[in-house]
Amino acid sequence: MTRVEIWPTKGHPAVFAERLEDSSLPTVLVYGHHDVQPVDPVEEWEAAPFQPLERDGLLLGRGTADDKGHILMHLEAVRGILDAQGRLPVNLKLIAEGEEENGSEHFESLFREHLGQLAADVAVISDTGMLSRTQPALTIALRGMAYWEVRVRTSDTDLHSGVYGGAVLNPVAVLCQMLAGLHDDSGRVTVPGFYDQVRDLSGEERAELARVPFDEETFLQSVGAVAGGEAGYTLMERRTTRPTLEICGIWGGYQGEGAKTVIPARAGAKLSSRLVPDQDAAEVTRLVANHLRTTAPQGVAVEFDLIHDGRWVLTPASHPAVDAAADALTAVWGRRPSYIREGGSIPPVATIAELLDVPCVLLGVGLPEDHIHAPNERVDLGQLFRGMQTLGRLWQGYSDLGREGLRG
Amino acid sequence: MTRVEIWPTKGHPAVFAERLEDSSLPTVLVYGHHDVQPVDPVEEWEAAPFQPLERDGLLLGRGTADDKGHILMHLEAVRGILDAQGRLPVNLKLIAEGEEENGSEHFESLFREHLGQLAADVAVISDTGMLSRTQPALTIALRGMAYWEVRVRTSDTDLHSGVYGGAVLNPVAVLCQMLAGLHDDSGRVTVPGFYDQVRDLSGEERAELARVPFDEETFLQSVGAVAGGEAGYTLMERRTTRPTLEICGIWGGYQGEGAKTVIPARAGAKLSSRLVPDQDAAEVTRLVANHLRTTAPQGVAVEFDLIHDGRWVLTPASHPAVDAAADALTAVWGRRPSYIREGGSIPPVATIAELLDVPCVLLGVGLPEDHIHAPNERVDLGQLFRGMQTLGRLWQGYSDLGREGLRG
Repeated sequence: MTRVEIWPTKGHPAVFAERLEDSSLPTVLVYGHHDVQPVDPVEEWEAAPFQPLERDGLLLGRGTADDKGHILMHLEAVRGILDAQGRLPVNLKLIAEGEEENGSEHFESLFREHLGQLAADVAVISDTGMLSRTQPALTIALRGMAYWEVRVRTSDTDLHSGVYGGAVLNPVAVLCQMLAGLHDDSGRVTVPGFYDQVRDLSGEERAELARVPFDEETFLQSVGAVAGGEAGYTLMERRTTRPTLEICGIWGGYQGEGAKTVIPARAGAKLSSRLVPDQDAAEVTRLVANHLRTTAPQGVAVEFDLIHDGRWVLTPASHPAVDAAADALTAVWGRRPSYIREGGSIPPVATIAELLDVPCVLLGVGLPEDHIHAPNERVDLGQLFRGMQTLGRLWQGYSDLGREGLRG
Repeated sequence: MTRVEIWPTKGHPAVFAERLEDSSLPTVLVYGHHDVQPVDPVEEWEAAPFQPLERDGLLLGRGTADDKGHILMHLEAVRGILDAQGRLPVNLKLIAEGEEENGSEHFESLFREHLGQLAADVAVISDTGMLSRTQPALTIALRGMAYWEVRVRTSDTDLHSGVYGGAVLNPVAVLCQMLAGLHDDSGRVTVPGFYDQVRDLSGEERAELARVPFDEETFLQSVGAVAGGEAGYTLMERRTTRPTLEICGIWGGYQGEGAKTVIPARAGAKLSSRLVPDQDAAEVTRLVANHLRTTAPQGVAVEFDLIHDGRWVLTPASHPAVDAAADALTAVWGRRPSYIREGGSIPPVATIAELLDVPCVLLGVGLPEDHIHAPNERVDLGQLFRGMQTLGRLWQGYSDLGREGLRG
C-alpha cells in the first residue's frame, strides 16, 4: 500500500509518504526536511540559488546538501529497488518536514498528532555528513541548541552624535561590552553555571574521537576560517562535544553607504548556544538571560527572547541497527565508517527518539565542503549515488535482522 | 545687484545668492546647507518626512531645523527688511551647500574656486542652536570630527554554527571585543595617544561653562537617554569640550526575523570621533586605525577606511562681530546670550574661517528638543520668527560698525 499526504501545521507543512509491504517486515521511518536556510547574502552566489547548477560532479543550489539532496537520495533508492525487485524488503515511511531550519517548532505536535501512522521499528535520519569522500561515517551524537535574540535600548530616539556624544550611553557600545564579556581570554563562556550540566567526556571517548581521521588544517582552510574556541580541547572536541555561545547576527545604527552621525537608540543581536549532554536548554536560556541583564549598565532596557531550542541526542553505537548501517557503508565505500559526533543540531531527532522509543540511525552523505547554510551550497553527486546503494543494502540488512533483531 | 546661481560640484550642488547694495557697506557671508540626514528609521515618523506638518507652533519634517529652517529664516528676514526699507543695510551673500551631512567633501574646493565672489567682512553661520526658548546663545566653539568604517573578516564564507561552532573565530564576537576595548570602565578612550593633543580647559573656561543655564536631567529626559561618557567632567563639558569615540552603526550576520544558525564571515561598524582643540583628524585616524589593527586577533583581516573628517572651530568671544550679535539677540529675547560650545561639527566653518580670514559668528535658533538627525525632526516656528527679527537688527548693527569696525 502506497500513500502520500501533505500534513499542514501552524507553520510550514510536512510531507508524509509510506509504502507498506507486509506487517511482518520491519518498518523504517526516514526523516528529512524540505525547508532551507535563507539565501542571503544572495550577491555571493555564482548562480541563482534555486536554479540548480551541475558542475564537475557537484550540484550547486540552496538545499542541495541540506537537506533536499538526502530526500532525493532516498526516493531514488526506492525507485532503484522497485525497478530491480518489484518490492521493498521493509515497510518504509518518510516524513519530510518544513521547519527544520527554524527549530522544527511544530514538529513535535505534528508527530504526536500522527503518532500511530509514524510507528516504526527504527528511524533513519539523513541530514548529516561524512568526513570525506573516502571515509564514511555514522553520527552517534548531535548537539542541541538554543537560539535567542537580545535587544538593548538606551534612549527614546536616535541622537545626534555631536549634540549628545560624550554625554550619553551608546547602545551599540553597551551591547558590544555585554557580548564581549560572554567569553574570557581562553575562549570559555563566562556565564555563571553555563558548564555545570556538561557531562565530561571519558578518556576512552576522547581517544575514540582522536582516532577519527580529521585534518584540522584542511577543515579550516577549505573555508578560510581562523581557529578559535575553548582552550584545552582539540578542534574536533570543541566542535562536537563542547557547548558554544555564538553571535549569529548583530545590528544597530547606520549600516548604509557613507556616514550618518548618529547615536542610535537601539541595538540587537542573535545569539545561539550549541548544547551537549546533559545541558538543559531552558536552564541555559535562564542563565544567559540573567547574565546579560546583570551585565547591562543601569538604565539600559534589555529585552531577551528565546527563538527556539532543541535537545542534544546520543545514540548507542553498539546497537544492531547501527551495526547494520556500518556494514552497508563498509560494503559500498570499502572502508568501515568512523563513529563521529556532529556539532549541528537536529531537534526533531530528539522528538523521534523520545516519542517512538526506537534507535535513531544518523546516516547522511554530506561533506564538510558542502557550504551548507552559506552561499554556493553544493552536494557531491557521487556521494548521493553511493548513498543510494548503501540504502539498498541497509533496507535488506534490516529485513534480515527482522523486527525482533532490530530491538537490540 | 541681485544674483542667484547654482554651483555644481562633483557631488551635490550648492546654491549661491547675493544682493550687493554698495561697496562701502560691510559684506556679510551667510552659510547654511540644503542637504539633510537620511530619514531612516522611516517607520518611526508620525508623518511623511518630506511633507511638512505644522502642529502646536512646531513644524515637523526632515531638515526643518537642520538646516533648511535656518535658510528660510534668512530669506524671510531679507524679505521683511526689503518690504520695510527697500534695501539692505549690508551687502549680503548666501551660500547653501549640499553636502554638509556628508562631511562637505567638495566644499573647500568649491569655496576656493569661487573665492573672489565669496569675499566678505564677516561670516554668519546659521546651523546651531540655543539652550532653550528663553535663553539665547552664541556658539563660540564647534567640535571637529572624523568618521570611519571598520570591517573584519574571519572566513571566506558564512559557516554553519553547528558544524564550525566552537572551532573557529566569530567575526561579530571579534568586532565586539575590539569595539568594547575602545573605552575603559571610566568611559575614557583607551586608544594610546588619543588625548595627547587635547588642550585642557582653563579654570576660567570651566567656570564659564558651569554658568551656562543647562539642566542635565531635562537634557537627558527629553530624549529618554541614559547618562554616559568620561568620568571627571560635567555632562556639558563631556558633550562640548571633550573628544568622543562613538559607534554609529554595526552589522554582521543574520538580522531578519527568527533564526539563522550561522557564523558570519564578516562584520563591520561605523565609528566616529568628535574632535576638540588641538586634535588633528589625520593623527587621530592613524591612532584609531593602528589600535584596531593591533587589538584584532591574529589571522583576522581588518579593513579601516576614513569616510570624512572636519576640523574643530574656536571663535574669539570678544570680537565686535560677536558683540553685535549678542546685542541683537538681547534686544529680541530680552536676555543676554550665553556663550556656549557646540558638540557638533560643521566642517565648512573651519574652511570659511581659514580661507576668508574673517570672524565666524555662529548664530542659530535650534532647540535641544528639535530631534535633528532623528525621526520627527521639528523646528519651533517662534524661534524662526525671533531669529528673523534678530537678523534685521544684526545687519543694521554690522552696518553701524562699518567695514573697519568689523575687523575688530
